[in-house]
Amino acid sequence: MPSYKLYYFEGRGLCEASRQLFALAEVPFEDVRLTGEKVAELKPTLPYGQMPVLEVDGVQIPQSVAIARFLAKKFGFAGKTEVEQAIVDGICDQWKDFFVEIKPFYYGKVEMCPPGWEDIEKAKTEVLIPARDKFFGFLKNLLNKNKIGFLVECGVTYADLFITDNMTSLFGWFSEYFEGHPEIEAYYKRVQDIPQLKAWLAKRPNTRS
Amino acid sequence: MPSYKLYYFEGRGLCEASRQLFALAEVPFEDVRLTGEKVAELKPTLPYGQMPVLEVDGVQIPQSVAIARFLAKKFGFAGKTEVEQAIVDGICDQWKDFFVEIKPFYYGKVEMCPPGWEDIEKAKTEVLIPARDKFFGFLKNLLNKNKIGFLVECGVTYADLFITDNMTSLFGWFSEYFEGHPEIEAYYKRVQDIPQLKAWLAKRPNTRS
Repeated sequence: MPSYKLYYFEGRGLCEASRQLFALAEVPFEDVRLTGEKVAELKPTLPYGQMPVLEVDGVQIPQSVAIARFLAKKFGFAGKTEVEQAIVDGICDQWKDFFVEIKPFYYGKVEMCPPGWEDIEKAKTEVLIPARDKFFGFLKNLLNKNKIGFLVECGVTYADLFITDNMTSLFGWFSEYFEGHPEIEAYYKRVQDIPQLKAWLAKRPNTRS
Repeated sequence: MPSYKLYYFEGRGLCEASRQLFALAEVPFEDVRLTGEKVAELKPTLPYGQMPVLEVDGVQIPQSVAIARFLAKKFGFAGKTEVEQAIVDGICDQWKDFFVEIKPFYYGKVEMCPPGWEDIEKAKTEVLIPARDKFFGFLKNLLNKNKIGFLVECGVTYADLFITDNMTSLFGWFSEYFEGHPEIEAYYKRVQDIPQLKAWLAKRPNTRS
């Protein structure tokens, strides 16, 4: 078995999906969570000067989605066929587009507010809610296509993990996040109820985002 | 051989890397380029209401990078080992982050200027040039790691194609784009000099972006 070391900040952020893949697959890994000086020390040694970075037997893999896809392929959470893998990749890219779109709200909440968006209520109404409604529409279409309750037919994938972990943050900041979308709330809970994931959620460090 | 139909607008944009993969692999495909009414007609039938979409034997795959990765895996331009594939995916995601970062300049040039960035010279100086210098630094590190002249050791990959096609647009709008970075200009030309690609560049429709 390779040795895995996953470097990130304290929080969940763009690293949590990969941590959850280790939990789902019940594969041990070193969950390195850095703060302050330690981050500054490590930064110049990282491929793009940023985290997350996964070290596999000493080789560094950067970029959150690339890391998660690598682990998902190894552990069986990336889609079964070539076409299914492409569909999963596309779902995750669509989620990333959504994540870029909601920056005025999301980064406002983590104290990295983009200029012009100091009014968080305005960011919620003008950016988050319309983006959510559009994105939830896509998720509903995907869920309606199969009867298994996840986004693609083969079962839970790394795309479900990015999406539902992001929902945890947004729901934590905006308690009506699922209002009017009961099937999405049910999907969110369904993912978190997977026994291996439930066990991880119960024991992981508790962070806001 | 599967039947491939690739749907996009007239331009290169986020679709060109996939067209170039077909050219590199010398695999025939239907290059469907839509304008105006035809786009409006097709939109509601697409997974996320947007293009590019690849149709493989009738199945729709959305999202530009997911499409390119799917083709690259099939045709041998996605990296050889699992780790190399993850490195290639990470390079492409890093490029996408760069692409998001330079929106004030890029979208200004294609008449979709984001609010507050009407002054294109300001967008060039304050956004494009610093983002370019940082991104070119990453590319130089990657090129220095191997002696083959592409970003990863196995040869040209889909990441090279997204990056160099984007350079074509930026260089077209800003003729000093490569100034001070001769090794990046040489890399750009090296990719375009691959015989199959050169033949495609000579015969493809000529568009600004």
